[in-house]
Amino acid sequence: MNYKTRTDLALEVRESFPEDDVEIKGVILTEDFDKKNKVRISTVEIMDEAGARAMERPIGTYITIEAPELNNSTEDYHKSVSNYIERNIKKLSGKLSKDEVLVVGLGNREVTPDSLGPQVVDNLFVTRHLIREFGKEFKEQNHLGNVSALSPGVMAQTGMETVEIIKGVIKETNPKLIIVIDALASRSVSRLNTTVQIADTGISPGSGVGNNRKALNEESLGVKVIAIGVPTVVDAATIVADTLTKYMETTGFNEEETYKFISEVNNSQINNMFVTPKNIDEMVKRISYTLSEALNSCFSG
Amino acid sequence: MNYKTRTDLALEVRESFPEDDVEIKGVILTEDFDKKNKVRISTVEIMDEAGARAMERPIGTYITIEAPELNNSTEDYHKSVSNYIERNIKKLSGKLSKDEVLVVGLGNREVTPDSLGPQVVDNLFVTRHLIREFGKEFKEQNHLGNVSALSPGVMAQTGMETVEIIKGVIKETNPKLIIVIDALASRSVSRLNTTVQIADTGISPGSGVGNNRKALNEESLGVKVIAIGVPTVVDAATIVADTLTKYMETTGFNEEETYKFISEVNNSQINNMFVTPKNIDEMVKRISYTLSEALNSCFSG
Amino acid sequence: MNYKTRTDLALEVRESFPEDDVEIKGVILTEDFDKKNKVRISTVEIMDEAGARAMERPIGTYITIEAPELNNSTEDYHKSVSNYIERNIKKLSGKLSKDEVLVVGLGNREVTPDSLGPQVVDNLFVTRHLIREFGKEFKEQNHLGNVSALSPGVMAQTGMETVEIIKGVIKETNPKLIIVIDALASRSVSRLNTTVQIADTGISPGSGVGNNRKALNEESLGVKVIAIGVPTVVDAATIVADTLTKYMETTGFNEEETYKFISEVNNSQINNMFVTPKNIDEMVKRISYTLSEALNSCFSG
Amino acid sequence: MNYKTRTDLALEVRESFPEDDVEIKGVILTEDFDKKNKVRISTVEIMDEAGARAMERPIGTYITIEAPELNNSTEDYHKSVSNYIERNIKKLSGKLSKDEVLVVGLGNREVTPDSLGPQVVDNLFVTRHLIREFGKEFKEQNHLGNVSALSPGVMAQTGMETVEIIKGVIKETNPKLIIVIDALASRSVSRLNTTVQIADTGISPGSGVGNNRKALNEESLGVKVIAIGVPTVVDAATIVADTLTKYMETTGFNEEETYKFISEVNNSQINNMFVTPKNIDEMVKRISYTLSEALNSCFSG
Repeated sequence: MNYKTRTDLALEVRESFPEDDVEIKGVILTEDFDKKNKVRISTVEIMDEAGARAMERPIGTYITIEAPELNNSTEDYHKSVSNYIERNIKKLSGKLSKDEVLVVGLGNREVTPDSLGPQVVDNLFVTRHLIREFGKEFKEQNHLGNVSALSPGVMAQTGMETVEIIKGVIKETNPKLIIVIDALASRSVSRLNTTVQIADTGISPGSGVGNNRKALNEESLGVKVIAIGVPTVVDAATIVADTLTKYMETTGFNEEETYKFISEVNNSQINNMFVTPKNIDEMVKRISYTLSEALNSCFSG
Repeated sequence: MNYKTRTDLALEVRESFPEDDVEIKGVILTEDFDKKNKVRISTVEIMDEAGARAMERPIGTYITIEAPELNNSTEDYHKSVSNYIERNIKKLSGKLSKDEVLVVGLGNREVTPDSLGPQVVDNLFVTRHLIREFGKEFKEQNHLGNVSALSPGVMAQTGMETVEIIKGVIKETNPKLIIVIDALASRSVSRLNTTVQIADTGISPGSGVGNNRKALNEESLGVKVIAIGVPTVVDAATIVADTLTKYMETTGFNEEETYKFISEVNNSQINNMFVTPKNIDEMVKRISYTLSEALNSCFSG
Repeated sequence: MNYKTRTDLALEVRESFPEDDVEIKGVILTEDFDKKNKVRISTVEIMDEAGARAMERPIGTYITIEAPELNNSTEDYHKSVSNYIERNIKKLSGKLSKDEVLVVGLGNREVTPDSLGPQVVDNLFVTRHLIREFGKEFKEQNHLGNVSALSPGVMAQTGMETVEIIKGVIKETNPKLIIVIDALASRSVSRLNTTVQIADTGISPGSGVGNNRKALNEESLGVKVIAIGVPTVVDAATIVADTLTKYMETTGFNEEETYKFISEVNNSQINNMFVTPKNIDEMVKRISYTLSEALNSCFSG
Repeated sequence: MNYKTRTDLALEVRESFPEDDVEIKGVILTEDFDKKNKVRISTVEIMDEAGARAMERPIGTYITIEAPELNNSTEDYHKSVSNYIERNIKKLSGKLSKDEVLVVGLGNREVTPDSLGPQVVDNLFVTRHLIREFGKEFKEQNHLGNVSALSPGVMAQTGMETVEIIKGVIKETNPKLIIVIDALASRSVSRLNTTVQIADTGISPGSGVGNNRKALNEESLGVKVIAIGVPTVVDAATIVADTLTKYMETTGFNEEETYKFISEVNNSQINNMFVTPKNIDEMVKRISYTLSEALNSCFSG
């Protein structure tokens, strides 16, 4: 069945293929598992145009860290996960993480599940202005990175595409690496706030809670872009359609009528709605802290 | 079919009865319609125990104001709706609205759709302390009400039942009327942020986005309680089950299997999830302003 | 006496000259007074380089609206003041206010007296994205302005000069007029939150609560800049030095020792401190609302 | 000279006595110094009525922890200070810290230097509701304390005295220990956000940024009260008068005229003003985190 599903996780796109479809041309999936912490790290590599077409995603590397305990975690567990995040950001950014970095916190600060990006930026150790004032020696003595940061807000607040704002800021401040933080949509409730995706492809249009944003990537910005995302919502139409599909697999169904019905769901009012947990405030606070720890540690010299 | 649905609107409970079930014993439904503003005002009166059982709601009066344009409203439209709200609060509270009033903003300030109550309280004109300092003459000269207010937070933040906090505060400050503001769950996406329910029954347990709160009503608090609620979310399990039911009505279904399936939905992870619009921040900001205007005007002498 | 005082109001600089100094070369002061509302409107025009040197301010027009009742105001009073603000913005911006406008809310959202700019932006009716989506007809039918807005945060949060961010954004989005909103420092406690300065000169470095910002003006940005400011703080060193001066005028003093003493005050720890009223949250909320009303009305077609 | 100064630190009252006044009857001052961390711990014990009169403070123990590096601290330094705070809370509360504790975050969340109490409460690990739901075994297995918490807001927001709200809540929930967190006023700029006072006397009227609160202490509440405060502001009138006094000590002065002048300062508009640093947002965020760490660790079993 082919209704329009909505996920921002490459891993979930990969999982959506039938199980016997062991290989997709142009796509490589590898996995690591940390038994002690129950942390699974999956890497989806989209190698070529064939893979990109199949996955409906740009060519590049998508690393997914799944840490199911993250919502009930001790401080130690949170440090382990933070380390995994740091290591994988470094893996994709290489030496650039020690160069001039601009971190962009996407999303709407006023909508709790969409406030992940701004909350991460709030806890960053921003240093660019200090280095410009006190010089390189100061940077080295204090083992500082060179970090600037911005939470531009969403189009309904600014009237501008995020890409317009960021492109302009890049031209004036010349960072060598952009790190974009955003809240994502997952298909699975169990992945919410327990999963981190790190990709070297930038962010595709329509991701996150908001929509219609133009892409933020190396092509549009002229600088390497690492995108870090955490699913904090499930698309309401997706959760309804997924449940319906499961129902029909259980009970048998008339394929044509069902297809029509799901199309209607996708065109109904729930199309601009999202599903999120009741304690989303605590969850976003906690994981945004884990992300900012990872970034602060990643940048520091 | 009889799965556990979730709505905080008495009107929706009434609507859930089959259409040919014109009369429910012990329940009276009356309607008014303002053609110019397209505002519908429905009053559900639960008269006796039979009505209470049928409606699964306490005996009392539930007024629902539906203002479908509220999300795209001009200032004039918002004033009309504000007037309707004011008039119906007065209808249920009588002269008590000019006496000492305590307004309680329920909900979690950090979760956007649940922040309605605290946001209303933020815009209230609180006067009790002024009257205690400057006396009754000051009150009369300035046409002030006698208003105190509290946003106690939710149990996950305080470790206390809201009823414990409010009961204690009432004992010390002796208000003659309690007005409780809360975000509600509706069954219908189109009612979100466009509908206001005013009831003289207090608030029943498990209402709103949070859950497990004990009732705030005249029985528990010893003072008359008017509850004002606005649906800002739909329960995720409800939206899934409702869609599924519609599907089955369209396509025909095996009743037993379906019942079992829906039970599973109700016991799944989506049970602690809610559905809300992407621009919930703007919507809650606007309607909380409409409510606080209505209250400020209602209390002033 | 010539200690370094700190005010962002051109009117206060003008007032600081000895009273018998009726005329300052290159500076014209005119006044209007609305008896009913007790609103005084003073215009300081700095005509040439001589005036600029004397005033230590760039050449241009500085309009100051003083509305001493603003902190205890009725809704009507607030509307009158809002009208005065709107009219004077139009006076300085001409037809540009109906063209593409970018409003910049300077200041730190997390520090109450410095949150004026972001709070004004939060209440703006932003439309640029709507017009790009629905076209010019939509704009005209709905009498919309073409408004974009940004609250970039302060250098300690972003690591970037505000001028870098805004310059970049302007290059990408091409607004025809920039309106900059900022919290200012006044010398006089009685002017806090009751005074609005509107200037066509942009904002000079070191204004507001923060410091070390580079100028935002037509020269640096290439677009006309109207700056709107409200004093929300008094510089702590200034309030101390001003009181001391008054003391010495009363009691007589040894000029040399006093000069030395005040220099020390200016170099002491209080140099990074500001003075602000205890109810600054209510005051900023109210006046930012007045400003955004004025702007929304000013832009709409 | 005897102008009305404003400090909430017992240590500063003690310091205000002339230096040769080695002993004050009924007041004992002891000091400890941690050389490595440069942390000074001073204990002022007011033993009897004579001491209470001299100090204008209730009988009891006031512990002051001065950690001058706290604003530029590493994580390790912050942990040391957190340990000192924890140890001294335990010293004053004894076994009660393991019993049912209610933490009250005083102050106005919307005014940055006054938001210390609410920010500490936001980071507390609140458990009372969990223990009521899952029982004592759950508490012991997980080494939990029994913690409830409330940020009631200030009188301008609620119309109620804080003591009314807290007294009522105590009657309903029966905690065995109250811990009150508040922002204080210091006389010295260098103590802001680097000093913690812990007292077993409760909080005296008029403390903090707000004013006119009635006392929260064992007498008014019927339960032991530990007050934890951090100076985040200096009273504006005090900073002016203190500077003036220093000036007069340097230059010589006419005592009578000066006294009159300072009285005028104290009756002027600056009387409702406070002085606070420009980066107060970062400072309060950091020290409130240090306090909540200390409390979380103090309560856990």
